[in-house]
Amino acid sequence: MDLKLITQRVQSDLQYIKEFTATPGSGCTRMPFSQETRYTAEYLKKVMADAGLEVREDCVGNIFGVRPGKDRSLPCIMVGSHYDSVYNGGDYDGIAGVISAVELARLLRDEDAELPCDFVAAAFMDEEGCRFGTGYFGSKCMLGQMTIEECRHYTDKDDISVYDAMKEYGLEPERLSEAAWPEGSIGHYIELHIEQGPVLDAEQTEIGLVDCIVGIQRYLVTICGRSDHAGTTPMDMRQDAVDIAAKVISKIGDMAREEGKGTVATVGYMKVTPSAMNVVAEKVDFSIDIRSSDNEVINRIAEKIRKELDEETGKTGASYSIDSKLTITPVNLNPGMLDIMEESCRKRGYSCRRMPSGAGHDALAIGQTIDTVMLFVPSKDGRSHCPAEYTPYEAFAKGILVLYDLIGQLQPQTGSCEK
Amino acid sequence: MDLKLITQRVQSDLQYIKEFTATPGSGCTRMPFSQETRYTAEYLKKVMADAGLEVREDCVGNIFGVRPGKDRSLPCIMVGSHYDSVYNGGDYDGIAGVISAVELARLLRDEDAELPCDFVAAAFMDEEGCRFGTGYFGSKCMLGQMTIEECRHYTDKDDISVYDAMKEYGLEPERLSEAAWPEGSIGHYIELHIEQGPVLDAEQTEIGLVDCIVGIQRYLVTICGRSDHAGTTPMDMRQDAVDIAAKVISKIGDMAREEGKGTVATVGYMKVTPSAMNVVAEKVDFSIDIRSSDNEVINRIAEKIRKELDEETGKTGASYSIDSKLTITPVNLNPGMLDIMEESCRKRGYSCRRMPSGAGHDALAIGQTIDTVMLFVPSKDGRSHCPAEYTPYEAFAKGILVLYDLIGQLQPQTGSCEK
Repeated sequence: MDLKLITQRVQSDLQYIKEFTATPGSGCTRMPFSQETRYTAEYLKKVMADAGLEVREDCVGNIFGVRPGKDRSLPCIMVGSHYDSVYNGGDYDGIAGVISAVELARLLRDEDAELPCDFVAAAFMDEEGCRFGTGYFGSKCMLGQMTIEECRHYTDKDDISVYDAMKEYGLEPERLSEAAWPEGSIGHYIELHIEQGPVLDAEQTEIGLVDCIVGIQRYLVTICGRSDHAGTTPMDMRQDAVDIAAKVISKIGDMAREEGKGTVATVGYMKVTPSAMNVVAEKVDFSIDIRSSDNEVINRIAEKIRKELDEETGKTGASYSIDSKLTITPVNLNPGMLDIMEESCRKRGYSCRRMPSGAGHDALAIGQTIDTVMLFVPSKDGRSHCPAEYTPYEAFAKGILVLYDLIGQLQPQTGSCEK
Repeated sequence: MDLKLITQRVQSDLQYIKEFTATPGSGCTRMPFSQETRYTAEYLKKVMADAGLEVREDCVGNIFGVRPGKDRSLPCIMVGSHYDSVYNGGDYDGIAGVISAVELARLLRDEDAELPCDFVAAAFMDEEGCRFGTGYFGSKCMLGQMTIEECRHYTDKDDISVYDAMKEYGLEPERLSEAAWPEGSIGHYIELHIEQGPVLDAEQTEIGLVDCIVGIQRYLVTICGRSDHAGTTPMDMRQDAVDIAAKVISKIGDMAREEGKGTVATVGYMKVTPSAMNVVAEKVDFSIDIRSSDNEVINRIAEKIRKELDEETGKTGASYSIDSKLTITPVNLNPGMLDIMEESCRKRGYSCRRMPSGAGHDALAIGQTIDTVMLFVPSKDGRSHCPAEYTPYEAFAKGILVLYDLIGQLQPQTGSCEK
């Protein structure tokens, strides 16, 4: 197991896949059910097959490659991440974890290793949730936590639903329930990911052992005011959706600052209607994303925001709606798996530290019910979700070696399962 | 001069033209240099010619129809308004004033009236400024106040400049200076317009005699922050463009409320980049529109906003730019012309009142140097710049009769002019 060879293979895959973007020259834009996603999926299926895996794409666009273990009735070890991106994101977020899983399969093949249970490389569809304002779509489908009704409910900026987008992409949303894996069929879930924060890079630490993933609540708020002429409508006769939205949004960041302890709150998406210089805005849609390792803190901020919305809309008789898009409670990751990885780092001479993840990941959805760990590699200057995102290829190779050690030492979960 | 006939003819024209919208079923969207504008221009040229006028479209898209007077060397009487709209606006703003000018020409023809000087019906291009974030484009070109450099500078949302849009539309921006009328060639300017505010409708007053138009300053602000992952970037390490913009915008409406006396301030346009739920915003562009009858008040608010921008961007090391899009000082309209109109209302039995205009109009640009009046007709519930905009056709007919009286009694300005 040559670090240089692993580095080269990972580099080759990631450099090839980064061309599949809707915004060439302006970072990776790989929205779910887009042409770029299709190209990426086909390449992933090819390299998984080349690595000797049994490959299939499920009915929601997740891709799985299976290396059969000694006892196929045992719960499997799954390693993976997602292959979609944010708008104008980086070339590593998600896809590097998928390629790491493929590389692990290559190493298992190269070493002719026989695991006690199946090894599964997984590439999940639509973790970011950027297009439909959701999140963890693919992994939730695998967990049986997504319904056709939800697929019809959530829509993108052009009012295309998940359901319609899937159809257009050639999938069969009616078969959604078939994407769910039988309970107990996944024994362990492991995800390698870039940190997307500044800690490891600032400390020059090589490996982050993630012991906790923060909880997230996401909302989409719509302020419904009234469009009026910006010159002739007296200030006290307006229902100005921008004025109201700004008064609420201006307090949201400060609510997180007051809570402290790593709490963050972000309004990243905003859309003003009709958005003309001389027209009082009729409508503002905006997103809220609140994260904390303490679920009580998240609930408290969400409550404060509702109070502000009541108060600010009430002043002018405007109205609002608030639609919950995502609720995930914080999750603690598996201590036993963390111990094995820590020992591997020590043996291999890699510097490491335990740390929480401020970002959500497929591991956050999966870790709610399945023994899960994450491994972080450094992000240069902590930059992520932007074209400047960067991690040296060798850093992934080191992470892959630690995961190889973990996989080899994991005790398969007892009891067989229906597969 | 039959009120019913005038009403019918105005109704026929306005109902025909309202089909020329880019957003059928969602109000009038007639952006400058669009196909809808071209169709409207061709129809206006046709009805002007039918009314016996000498018709020409100038090199910037203004349309003029001339009825020669007794002494063609005298400064003309011009009546007109604009034929563009806001996004999803109403069917009367601007175009009703143009059709009123055409109807005046029909009445002059029907009565075989000979005026001492030329009568000119004018239809101006791009008064609203919605597409390029400017305003009064056509009338400013007529006044010789627009340059090719400005045409190249101002761009729309797709980065198409005024210059390029004109070329694409079939105009010759290089000939811009030819659109300027010789100094002294326009003796009086008269504009009929819907009030776009609630006063006349609430009072059941038939005619508004506009004695003052408020001044306007418009700006486009860009907040430049840094895009970061919304989960992993601690609050104190962010340059969140939405957070900064919201803190500034939340105070702008209140600044106008504090000044009182009809002062208004509006942020109508906003664009967030990249605008994704889980990405800290890199950039926010937003417009500011400040209006008051007191120019000092406008300057004071603009100054306060700059101070807020300095302060809020300074806290995080973000930056901003502020680009002045429009500066027009308040203008008092011609008292002599107002007296004639008031006397006409009295004789015809129409209720009337003097009032300021909170909206800008071509009359605001033209009234800076030329004797100008405006006549308002009621807007139902004060609604304007939206599909609900409504004025009964008979209200226009009454306004047209008052303007007919005004035109007949205006003493031509002394001294001939080069035409």
